[in-house]
Amino acid sequence: MSLTINDLGKAVLETHYAVRGPIVARAQELERAGKKIIYCNIGNPQALGQKPIAYVRQVLALAEWPELAALAPEAFPADVLEAARAIGANAAGGVGAYSESKGLRFVRQAVARFIAERDSGDGVEVTADPEHIFLTDGASKGVQSALRLLIASSDDGIMVPVPQYPLYSATITLYGGVQVGYYLDEAAGWSLSRKMLDKALLEARAKGTNVKAICVINPGNPTGAVLSRGNIEMVIRFAKEHGLSILADEVYQTNTYRPGERFVSFARILTELGEKEVSLFSFHSCSKGYLGECGQRGGYMEVRNVPGEVLAQITKLQSIALCANLPGQVLVYCLVNPPRPGQPSYERYRAEREGVIESLRRRADLLARGLNDIPGYSCQPITGAMYAFPTITLPEGRTDDEYCLALLESTGICVVPGSGFGQEPGKAHFRTTILPPIDELSEVVGKIKEFHLSWR
Amino acid sequence: MSLTINDLGKAVLETHYAVRGPIVARAQELERAGKKIIYCNIGNPQALGQKPIAYVRQVLALAEWPELAALAPEAFPADVLEAARAIGANAAGGVGAYSESKGLRFVRQAVARFIAERDSGDGVEVTADPEHIFLTDGASKGVQSALRLLIASSDDGIMVPVPQYPLYSATITLYGGVQVGYYLDEAAGWSLSRKMLDKALLEARAKGTNVKAICVINPGNPTGAVLSRGNIEMVIRFAKEHGLSILADEVYQTNTYRPGERFVSFARILTELGEKEVSLFSFHSCSKGYLGECGQRGGYMEVRNVPGEVLAQITKLQSIALCANLPGQVLVYCLVNPPRPGQPSYERYRAEREGVIESLRRRADLLARGLNDIPGYSCQPITGAMYAFPTITLPEGRTDDEYCLALLESTGICVVPGSGFGQEPGKAHFRTTILPPIDELSEVVGKIKEFHLSWR
Repeated sequence: MSLTINDLGKAVLETHYAVRGPIVARAQELERAGKKIIYCNIGNPQALGQKPIAYVRQVLALAEWPELAALAPEAFPADVLEAARAIGANAAGGVGAYSESKGLRFVRQAVARFIAERDSGDGVEVTADPEHIFLTDGASKGVQSALRLLIASSDDGIMVPVPQYPLYSATITLYGGVQVGYYLDEAAGWSLSRKMLDKALLEARAKGTNVKAICVINPGNPTGAVLSRGNIEMVIRFAKEHGLSILADEVYQTNTYRPGERFVSFARILTELGEKEVSLFSFHSCSKGYLGECGQRGGYMEVRNVPGEVLAQITKLQSIALCANLPGQVLVYCLVNPPRPGQPSYERYRAEREGVIESLRRRADLLARGLNDIPGYSCQPITGAMYAFPTITLPEGRTDDEYCLALLESTGICVVPGSGFGQEPGKAHFRTTILPPIDELSEVVGKIKEFHLSWR
Repeated sequence: MSLTINDLGKAVLETHYAVRGPIVARAQELERAGKKIIYCNIGNPQALGQKPIAYVRQVLALAEWPELAALAPEAFPADVLEAARAIGANAAGGVGAYSESKGLRFVRQAVARFIAERDSGDGVEVTADPEHIFLTDGASKGVQSALRLLIASSDDGIMVPVPQYPLYSATITLYGGVQVGYYLDEAAGWSLSRKMLDKALLEARAKGTNVKAICVINPGNPTGAVLSRGNIEMVIRFAKEHGLSILADEVYQTNTYRPGERFVSFARILTELGEKEVSLFSFHSCSKGYLGECGQRGGYMEVRNVPGEVLAQITKLQSIALCANLPGQVLVYCLVNPPRPGQPSYERYRAEREGVIESLRRRADLLARGLNDIPGYSCQPITGAMYAFPTITLPEGRTDDEYCLALLESTGICVVPGSGFGQEPGKAHFRTTILPPIDELSEVVGKIKEFHLSWR
C-alpha cells in the first residue's frame, strides 16, 4: 500500500496518550465479549450517570431549534428564552454559521466579565480583555494551540509536572519539543517546590534544552491536589526569573472540595503581583466542574502579557480550521453567564450545581479513605479535580502496567497505570477517577482491595 | 514579555490562510465603523440567510434536551423522536459524554452504509468498514490528521492543485512539509491533466522532495468545477505508478448543478478498478451541501487501503484531544441517515433540500453569466461547489490583492484574491462565493462591474 507504518514520522510514532491507551483498548475488547467494565480511566462524568444541568441543555436545545420557543413556550423558563434570544441576536446565522476565528465576540465578552468577577476582590481589581480570549473545542485544543506557539525548534523545552496529564507529554512529543519533567512532592500533598523546579530547569539547560515555559495543572490531574496561593506566587516568580511563559490548566477550578475554599487563579496572582512580563496562557473547559459536558467540546484560552503580534498569530492558527464548534461556544456562554439569584432558573440551577459538587466531594472523601485502608496503598487527600493517584506497593520486579491490566482482567475496573503520567523511578501508582456513582464506588474500592491482597 | 514574536517558529510565521486573512480583517474593521459588508470570502451559507434543514435541528434539539420529547411531544415528528431514541440508546451519556476517539460506533456504521449506498450500482458493489471511518470536527480536522501522518520529514511533499483551498497550503507549511503545486487547466473547465501532474512530480523530485501524496478537491474549491470520471481514474493510476496516497476532498459532493449529474467518488472508482495498493483518505462534511451547518463542525474521514497499524496511529492522534464534538457527530448521523420516503419528515426534508440545491444552482448560473458579462472577466461554468474563480484582466503592474482591497473599500464586497489560492504567474483572479441571496447577488455583480470599469 502507498502508506505504511514506515512512512510515519518519529514524532507520530513516539507519541503516547495513556488515558486511552492499550489498557482501555483491552477493556473495550472485554466489554464487547460481555464483561462488565467500570471505566475509571477518564474524567467523563455523564458516561457514568451524572445528569446534565438543565439550564444549559434548555439553552442549547433552543439554540439548535429556535422555533421551539414558539412551539413549546411553556417548556422554557423566561431566562432561558432570554439567553437564546441573546445568542440569536449576537451570532449571525446562529449555531449553523462559522463564527470569527477567535469565537463569537459576545461570548468572549461574557468570558472577560466572568474572569473579572471571579478574580476581583479584597482590594484587587482583575480585568480581562475579550480580544485576549480564544474559544476552543474543549481546553485540549487551547493547550495544543499554546504549545504550537512555544515549540519552535527541537531544542525547545516545556516544563511539565511529574505526574502530569498526558495531553502535555503527547503534544510536546508530537510537536517535536522536549518534555522537561519537574517532580511534585507527593508527601506534601503533591505541592510544588522551588527546589524541584530549579533542579529540573538546570538539568535541562545543562543538556542544551531551551526551556520556554512551565505548565501547571491546578487543581491537579492526576493528583487531585489544590495548590496553595504561595505555590502559585512561587511559580510566577520562578517563571519571571527565567523568562518562561506559564500554561495554567485550570479546568477543575470549580472542583474543589475543602469546605470554604475559593479557587485562586494564576491571573489573580499575576494581577496581585503587578506582573507585566510573564506571559500567561490559562485554560478553562465546560467538560469538568459541575457541568461535566465532555462531549460538547467547549472551552476557552485566556492570554495575558502577550504582545498583539503574537495574538494575531494565534488567531491565524485558529482560522485554519475556521472556528471552535458553535454549540460548544454557546455552552461556554452558559458556563460564564449562569442564572443569577432571582431569575426563574436560578433555584434549580443552584440545586443541581451543589448536588453535583457535594456528591463529588463525598466520593472524593470515600475513595481516599477507602484506598488508604488497603494495606500497601497510600493516597493523598483528594482536595480537588476528579482523580485519586495512590502510591501502591507491588511485589519486587512487578510494574503498575502489569498491575492495572491484571486488575482489569480480574475485576473489570479500568484505571490508568502511573507510568502513563510519570512518577519517581521505582514507585508505582495508578489514576482512578472518583466518578462512579457512590454505591458503585464502595464496590470498586472493595474489589480493588480484594484484588490487591491476592495479586502476586 | 516572556513570549515575543521572535520566539515563534518559522513554520508558524510562514503559515498563511487567505480566506480569513488581512482583507477579511479590514472588512471587519469597516463593518465596525458602520459600512455594510457582503461577505463573499467564505462558504458560510447560514450567515447569509440560508435556513437550516428542520429535521436535523429537531434531532439536535432533542439530543441536547431529551426531556422535550415528553414536554412537547407534538413539536416533533415520529421519525425525529425515533432518531433521538437511537442516539440515546447508542451513546452512553448522550452528547454530554466523550465518545470513543474515532467517534460513536453506530454513527460510523451509518456512515459506512451511506458510502456503500452512495457508491454501489451498475454492477459494482462498494463496501465500507466502520473501523476505517473517523468522525472529525468538520472536514478540516480530518485533512489535518491525514497530513500529519503523511508529513514525516521536511523533505516530504504533498501535491496540491493550483488553485487550491488554503487549508492545504497552510497545514503543509505548519507541519513543515513541502507544497508541490500542480496546475489545473482553466481553459478546460479547471480539469486535471496527466501532463501537469507528471511535470509537477518530476520537478519536485529533481529538487529532492519525497512526494508522498496528491490532494484533489472535487467538486473544486475555489474552481467550482466537477471532475470527470476519467480524470478521477487518471489520478488513481498516476498515484499507483508513483506510490502516492490520495487525499480526496469531497465535501461539496451534493453541490453539483448540471442536471442529472451524479457525484462520482474516489472510493467508487478505486473499487471499479479493483485497486488495493493506493491509500485513499476521503473527507466529507456537514458544513456544505444542502445542510450548510458550518458552525456545528461535523465531518468524517474514510480511509481505504491503509494497514491496521496505521489506523491505530490515526486513532491515537485523535485520542489526544479525546473526540470530535458530539453534536457534530449527531449531525453526521443525520447527514448520512436522512428521512426516507414514507417517513413523516420526508416531504419537508425533500422540499427543503431541493429548495437549497435549486437556489444554489440558480445563483451559480446567474453569477457565472454576470461575471462573464464584465469586460475583462472570464469565468468558467460553475458546475459544483459554492464558488466562482474568474480570471480578471488588470491594468499593467496591478495585483489581485490590490484589486480586492479596493473592491472592498469601494463596494463593501469582500472576496479573496487569487494569490491566496495560487495561480499561474502573471494571471489574476479572485474567489467569490455564490451564497448571497439571489437579489443581493445581482446587486453584487452590478457593483463589481461598475467598480471594475472605473478601477485603474
